[in-house]
Amino acid sequence: MSDRAALSRLSLNQRTTASWSLPDAIQGCVDAGLGAIGIWREQLAEVGLDEACRLVDESGLRVSSLCRGGFFTTADRTEAAAAEARNREAIDEAAALNAATLVLVAGGLPPGDRDLEAARNRATQAIERLVPYAHERRVNLGIEPMNPIYAADRGVISTLAQALDIAERFAPADVGVVVDTFHVWWEPGVAEQLQRGGQRIVSYQICDWITPLPADSLLARGMMGDGHIDFPTFTRSVARTGYRGDVEVEIFNAELWAAPPAEVVDTMAGRYLELVQPYLAE
Amino acid sequence: MSDRAALSRLSLNQRTTASWSLPDAIQGCVDAGLGAIGIWREQLAEVGLDEACRLVDESGLRVSSLCRGGFFTTADRTEAAAAEARNREAIDEAAALNAATLVLVAGGLPPGDRDLEAARNRATQAIERLVPYAHERRVNLGIEPMNPIYAADRGVISTLAQALDIAERFAPADVGVVVDTFHVWWEPGVAEQLQRGGQRIVSYQICDWITPLPADSLLARGMMGDGHIDFPTFTRSVARTGYRGDVEVEIFNAELWAAPPAEVVDTMAGRYLELVQPYLAE
Repeated sequence: MSDRAALSRLSLNQRTTASWSLPDAIQGCVDAGLGAIGIWREQLAEVGLDEACRLVDESGLRVSSLCRGGFFTTADRTEAAAAEARNREAIDEAAALNAATLVLVAGGLPPGDRDLEAARNRATQAIERLVPYAHERRVNLGIEPMNPIYAADRGVISTLAQALDIAERFAPADVGVVVDTFHVWWEPGVAEQLQRGGQRIVSYQICDWITPLPADSLLARGMMGDGHIDFPTFTRSVARTGYRGDVEVEIFNAELWAAPPAEVVDTMAGRYLELVQPYLAE
Repeated sequence: MSDRAALSRLSLNQRTTASWSLPDAIQGCVDAGLGAIGIWREQLAEVGLDEACRLVDESGLRVSSLCRGGFFTTADRTEAAAAEARNREAIDEAAALNAATLVLVAGGLPPGDRDLEAARNRATQAIERLVPYAHERRVNLGIEPMNPIYAADRGVISTLAQALDIAERFAPADVGVVVDTFHVWWEPGVAEQLQRGGQRIVSYQICDWITPLPADSLLARGMMGDGHIDFPTFTRSVARTGYRGDVEVEIFNAELWAAPPAEVVDTMAGRYLELVQPYLAE
């Protein structure tokens, strides 16, 4: 297989090359021969939805995900209504872009609130309220469990098992799960949970867990191969579920953000070809 | 109940007052009216086991834990033998001190090793090899699951459920679990796992999860009440299991270490009386 063909399932998540605008990132993906892009709403807003759709169509890229919906753990009614409105808007965008999934990050504990179970329940209820709207627009809502390092301030859904417990209340076409190696690599029994997930796995995101953790824990992610995650084994487990979607590289990392984006894409493509692509099923 | 009586189950883990020697810490506990102390092997070595036993006996304090055994995930035979010898020595010390448990921290992935499952299996096998030795000396081995933030470099056993899966292979008197709020507060279904743990819970350690995480993730722990953990609810869950042991405050935190230790003990006693003690069963 040529390198170019081998990169057909690789997707660049825009956060990996944070300094690129959406047009830059689309061009960067095309130049590198990638098959897809993971789009962030912030950069989407800069060019507008219509122009973004036009650029994506022209490029021939798939949109492997739209990031992000969610952040709906608030106990305040007005804030909850605002979060729901934001999520409906995100669903509209995901539909227009024909994104494989709208990534949902639950959000953390509201300020001063220590009731984690209640926050998890509110997140579940918020998803339930969004499903009919997403269903009508054929948008899959992808629940992303987050590493417990973020349980307090970013994502109260902490394991793939927990994300699946929620997703399984709904039809697979409506609600799936986003599997990000950074978030779930440590989870006991993760291979069994992936198997359980099966067709609900709507996004496979990759980046590494590096130590020592950088000072800003939000930027603690590393390039595949720089940390502790066993990508061949994890990728085989994902492939065994029947997953045939894109593989999206999402790395929040200050050093990478300071590097020329095209070089970062080069490096990620190289690591993907070495550590991930050979272990994906065709 | 007088404050003094109310503090009878409170234990100072030596890491909370890192600048105190063992004699200092014992005196600090006595002065503050605490019932117990959690001893670290490093500070124990400074005074020697015989003198430590004498000081503890004189003080009337219970030893709620000896920290730490474990660190046995190596795949190297020579290193594994050395780890086993260190752990036997720790068991001897725990027996002499009549410690409620010897805390076992599994250890992280060996350098360059990415096989988390194999490391977890080696930790389990290492525990299995220690059990007869500990049993003869009537020492309980307390498996401490660690927050996944430490899965790579400190402790590959990541959840209370996983710790119980291992502990349940052995008699409850031989192998228990250490429940530290910092490590398991986020765990989905933790109340059910505590109930499952029952008499296997041999240590209840407390400290808070604070955000933003300090730059050094090892020192990311906070005083109870300063972070996101719901101590009343968690403590009620622990009490419902029938736990009647000590409550050990173990806080690794650079700011606390810079403060006068007696003040730290004062603060922790106050927070304990407010957030924990009222929710313990008598």
